Amino acid sequence: MGILKDEGVVYKAVEDVDIGPDSKEVYLRANVKAPRMAGFLVKVFGWFLELRIFGTVILYILKKNNLIHKLVSYAELQESPLFVPLHPYEGLGEEEKCIESDHLSPVEQVQQATDCLQASESMTKTSSNFSFQRWTIMDYSRQYMSREITPLMVAERFIAAVHESSKPSREMSLFISFDSEDILRQATESTLRYERGEPISVLDGVPLAIKDEIDCLPHPTTGGTKWLHKVRPCNEDACCVKRLRLCGAILVGKTNMHELGAGTSGINPHYGTTRNPHNANRIAGGSSSGSAAVVCAGLCPAALGVDGGGSVRMPASLCGVVGLKPTFGRVPHSGVIPLNWTVGMVGILAGTVEDALIVYAAISGPISSDESAPLLPKVCFPLLKAPDCISNIKLAKYGEWFNDCTDDIRICCSNALAKLYDQYGWETIEVTIPEIEVMRLAHYSTIGSECSTAIACHLEKLDMAELGWDARVALAVYGAFNSREYLNAQRIRNRQLQFHKRIFAKADVIVTPTTGVTAYSIKDDALKTGELDYINGASLVRYQIAGNFLGLPAVTVPVGYDGAGLPIGLQFIGKPWSESLLIHIAFAMQALCISDYKRPEIFYDILSKK
Amino acid sequence: MGILKDEGVVYKAVEDVDIGPDSKEVYLRANVKAPRMAGFLVKVFGWFLELRIFGTVILYILKKNNLIHKLVSYAELQESPLFVPLHPYEGLGEEEKCIESDHLSPVEQVQQATDCLQASESMTKTSSNFSFQRWTIMDYSRQYMSREITPLMVAERFIAAVHESSKPSREMSLFISFDSEDILRQATESTLRYERGEPISVLDGVPLAIKDEIDCLPHPTTGGTKWLHKVRPCNEDACCVKRLRLCGAILVGKTNMHELGAGTSGINPHYGTTRNPHNANRIAGGSSSGSAAVVCAGLCPAALGVDGGGSVRMPASLCGVVGLKPTFGRVPHSGVIPLNWTVGMVGILAGTVEDALIVYAAISGPISSDESAPLLPKVCFPLLKAPDCISNIKLAKYGEWFNDCTDDIRICCSNALAKLYDQYGWETIEVTIPEIEVMRLAHYSTIGSECSTAIACHLEKLDMAELGWDARVALAVYGAFNSREYLNAQRIRNRQLQFHKRIFAKADVIVTPTTGVTAYSIKDDALKTGELDYINGASLVRYQIAGNFLGLPAVTVPVGYDGAGLPIGLQFIGKPWSESLLIHIAFAMQALCISDYKRPEIFYDILSKK
Repeated sequence: MGILKDEGVVYKAVEDVDIGPDSKEVYLRANVKAPRMAGFLVKVFGWFLELRIFGTVILYILKKNNLIHKLVSYAELQESPLFVPLHPYEGLGEEEKCIESDHLSPVEQVQQATDCLQASESMTKTSSNFSFQRWTIMDYSRQYMSREITPLMVAERFIAAVHESSKPSREMSLFISFDSEDILRQATESTLRYERGEPISVLDGVPLAIKDEIDCLPHPTTGGTKWLHKVRPCNEDACCVKRLRLCGAILVGKTNMHELGAGTSGINPHYGTTRNPHNANRIAGGSSSGSAAVVCAGLCPAALGVDGGGSVRMPASLCGVVGLKPTFGRVPHSGVIPLNWTVGMVGILAGTVEDALIVYAAISGPISSDESAPLLPKVCFPLLKAPDCISNIKLAKYGEWFNDCTDDIRICCSNALAKLYDQYGWETIEVTIPEIEVMRLAHYSTIGSECSTAIACHLEKLDMAELGWDARVALAVYGAFNSREYLNAQRIRNRQLQFHKRIFAKADVIVTPTTGVTAYSIKDDALKTGELDYINGASLVRYQIAGNFLGLPAVTVPVGYDGAGLPIGLQFIGKPWSESLLIHIAFAMQALCISDYKRPEIFYDILSKK
Repeated sequence: MGILKDEGVVYKAVEDVDIGPDSKEVYLRANVKAPRMAGFLVKVFGWFLELRIFGTVILYILKKNNLIHKLVSYAELQESPLFVPLHPYEGLGEEEKCIESDHLSPVEQVQQATDCLQASESMTKTSSNFSFQRWTIMDYSRQYMSREITPLMVAERFIAAVHESSKPSREMSLFISFDSEDILRQATESTLRYERGEPISVLDGVPLAIKDEIDCLPHPTTGGTKWLHKVRPCNEDACCVKRLRLCGAILVGKTNMHELGAGTSGINPHYGTTRNPHNANRIAGGSSSGSAAVVCAGLCPAALGVDGGGSVRMPASLCGVVGLKPTFGRVPHSGVIPLNWTVGMVGILAGTVEDALIVYAAISGPISSDESAPLLPKVCFPLLKAPDCISNIKLAKYGEWFNDCTDDIRICCSNALAKLYDQYGWETIEVTIPEIEVMRLAHYSTIGSECSTAIACHLEKLDMAELGWDARVALAVYGAFNSREYLNAQRIRNRQLQFHKRIFAKADVIVTPTTGVTAYSIKDDALKTGELDYINGASLVRYQIAGNFLGLPAVTVPVGYDGAGLPIGLQFIGKPWSESLLIHIAFAMQALCISDYKRPEIFYDILSKK
């Protein structure tokens, strides 16, 4: 890092920082100075923060105590700001052989993806001893083609299952907006297409859910709030939703989320707390809580989320499903609530890597009218083959960071790496990734500044009582950054990108646990007010930031369970535009773990022939 | 614009704003609420501003009174931020036929430029009735080639002239750093090259001056301060300086500038006030004051400046020389003091358009190691031909804005447009450019935020007494923006770029006076403390902002004089990367005005055979 001065850190030149395994760079643990608060306490705290003078003083102390002053505000940096993590496309490496899609339509891209999957089917079949296997999109497609099951039958079972999940005894709080009639209408149309022998794609008739941060007709887009949809009406589908609809998917509704995406637990005081299907007393994680839970519970093979600070990957990991966050710019952002401009991106939650690939294929690629379109690379599809045929994958691991998690997670993730080595000969190399905690604080300053700016004009007209208390606290903190803090955060972004480029010169991907803790308990005092649990929050986001702040693609794959039977995810972070390789690696990892996957406590088997 | 609410403006959608001549958009005059201050008053004001609580209150009132709150901070905008005005290259229009240089060396590019000039020589010669003609780079080259004058003779005359200009009776304060020995060494080497018959380029032996914001060995880079060079030593030439040196130019020293570029008058309490060679009691303009004055006074045919808010074009206009600010990204910025990251760019001050073209050729083009290099267009050179052969040039003029200047300027600039129409048939079309004052405030918030962040780490270690009082006030205001103001400013940047794209769909260039006032008087009370004259300041920058905030290329050409005999400039603002067309137009404009150019009161004829 650099010399710690009285006020701010003086950062060393990037090239003088050792990123090797024996680096003297210190791993700084997140030193969160804020006690857990919920109920009455969070109300009092929120109320204080909103006082003009007194609030400013508390915020000053918070920033100082949590090292934002030292590491961001008053830091001495050589770098220029990097404002947007949009990476120039430099072609793919030798190991990333793939099919380049020549700006195909979503339907054509899905066809490409399924061709890849079919070519590799022999491989999937080899790992067969499943105790529990999820229905995949290809399973839906096959059942529909065989006419044994119709989309309409699935829709009816789906609707029944959602009603069951909402019963007072369950209170899963999966959806914010749900319209049975609309689902049945879509399912009827799809069923007719199959009857005519004219399904549009393998996604035709497949139920997919959309996080309530993404526009999807006929639903309002609440962003998990009670008011945002009133000031920002949803008039058309978001681009990614439009593409799924073009492929014939049934869009089953808008999933629950942490209010404004401003938290990681998925506790929402307005629409209820999304519960983890593996254990209903545990959080599902957030902010894409509902999307993770519907996939986990078997209601949909896949769902869309938005990931601004791990919001797709964290709940995916906590719910034991796959989470894929593509490179910044890969999926058009139009039609997503602009809660920030430089860190959030649409991501995919899916039961299997195969399904993540298919949905990724459907929604990826620039909008042709977009100005930056010529700068963006084409979408690539992995030439999936038996993983042991992919030689020479090198995984970069930063030991101290990797191990900053619970024992169960550390052991489980280390075992997964050992399997990759034993089965495929993929080596893990030790590296040092400097200033990870600095990056977390810089990302926080960025997402905070952008979020409060983006919704400021709405907040000014708003009765603050319409907001949950944890969101009110978050917004008070978000609004407390000055332009120097914002600009220094962007200089740190530039700096971190250079560190990551150096890591990627040594290895194909960076490997980490997805989260530092598994799904923790939902406490009753949090249900009405939300909770402030920055310590658990910091453990959840610990491994997420590079994906957002640097716009790197990342995928989480379930690799096991902790002692309490809660899922553990392993994350692979790739170079820009390397989704093809990432999916390949995730596929290989899944093949080694899938036989141990467990059926969630709450599971709806909506495709079986019964 | 939009509806004025209590706190912030609600901006209309860009497509709903009429940019036609009969638009109902209101032209908002800069309503500067700050009296002129100098001497004791500016000290008191600066001292108040630096008080923690009281200063915060004054700054709040200043931002409110000057409409920053209404138009920027609390504004309601639909746009995403545009952080960096780096434009994708979309090819050139039909009218911009030119030679594309295929990433040539600086020497080769200069050769291309001189080829263009020679091809057009017949045209230059046609406009011949000069009362006063400056020596051009080609004149230097011809004299040196004929061996009648040597670079060494020029260097000796140059050194004598600079000494003369520094005499107590003159006190022109042209240079901050000046090294006779270094000049003589360079001149001797150049003279030897000519003796061997091996000059490097037409720039060989030509004296060029560099603004003291750009690194140039063996000089320190002070940025007009007493301390910046101590904390930021100059270890190598800036990229643009390196390129000039490669062409054989004699780099004669570092020109005076407004302290930290934070003002437009060129009054520098540490290195003296640069005086206007047309009238020594008038300002030279700033911040590139010395570069404008040395060119005006005949000491150099051209000089480099840096333009973050008109800092090249304003002093060029006030001193009656040509000022060319290329597109953002055209000239590498490495080796320029990072006083901001998104608005400043290296520009050229030259006695004639021909010389601006040659220096532009020498310094333009990406650094090959630069990552964004593949995205940047090649450097183009205009196929200069008689201007009446260029048909169909359309000039966009926003009448209310155009006329917001002194009567002399308005009449003189209007006459220039009439000449263009009479001689070449170039039409002026009326347009409305909305929200110009909004853009000025957004640009101010941006340059302020970036400047205070960029030098914050130095300021914290600094004894504030080392700073001039006007710079202290500027820095106090610069540091007062929060991240929301910065981000909203970037959203306004996006919005304005869209307006300008629509204007450029109707016309080839935008035409304005370069400044709203001509060189105003230097008052004695300002010499020691600097002065705060935001009203004259606003008149100076009135037409500058699009060049910086949107990164558009712009050029100012002298077109006449006011009643007091002070020069008046006309500005052409072009589409991104259209320097070739701009130079073409400037060349044509100059041809119509050059016969009226006046010899400055203070002028050194360092090339004549005597």
